[in-house]
Amino acid sequence: MSQPARTPDPPYYAVIFTSLRTEGDDGYGEMSEKMIALAAQQPGFLGVESARDADGLGITVSYWESEEAIANWRKHAEHRVAQSTGIEKWYAEFFTRVAKVERARRFTR
Amino acid sequence: MSQPARTPDPPYYAVIFTSLRTEGDDGYGEMSEKMIALAAQQPGFLGVESARDADGLGITVSYWESEEAIANWRKHAEHRVAQSTGIEKWYAEFFTRVAKVERARRFTR
Repeated sequence: MSQPARTPDPPYYAVIFTSLRTEGDDGYGEMSEKMIALAAQQPGFLGVESARDADGLGITVSYWESEEAIANWRKHAEHRVAQSTGIEKWYAEFFTRVAKVERARRFTR
Repeated sequence: MSQPARTPDPPYYAVIFTSLRTEGDDGYGEMSEKMIALAAQQPGFLGVESARDADGLGITVSYWESEEAIANWRKHAEHRVAQSTGIEKWYAEFFTRVAKVERARRFTR
């Protein structure tokens, strides 16, 4: 999580999840770490990047080989429980955007 | 910056910029704010979301109407100076990914 994801050459897919949290942790931190670890075990997973700003805005971008891989992860049983709980109590607002990465450039010092 | 971008219905484009900073500010904070304000004035700009994690990973996603709008912003004179300075001193590593947003879902409480 502490570095940009080492994705292969495009094309591939990105799921951009941007969120504002409600107040209090209420099990969120633990579930968040668990979901990232679980996502990484799914077929077609290419990488994930996540940051939450001091002002409360969080951005998690996960990268996938195909739309099918994204659909499978969305329907994963444990992930569905997390999604429901997110809507029930953890998030004040979120956007989920699915995008096709067409080109990428990496710089490293 | 403190909330998800209120983008219109897809399709539109996203530029996902993920970075690790070098140590020290060295003018970065000021330039970063200036570039976000300047981007927001460009034709075809739809919104921006930015978060930097306590562990140093930063994610900025800007949204654009078209690839042409992205190309124009990339070539903007002041932005080019910022890009050069970023490579020269501010970033240890970054990825820039250009992606076409195909679908989006918003949740709000």
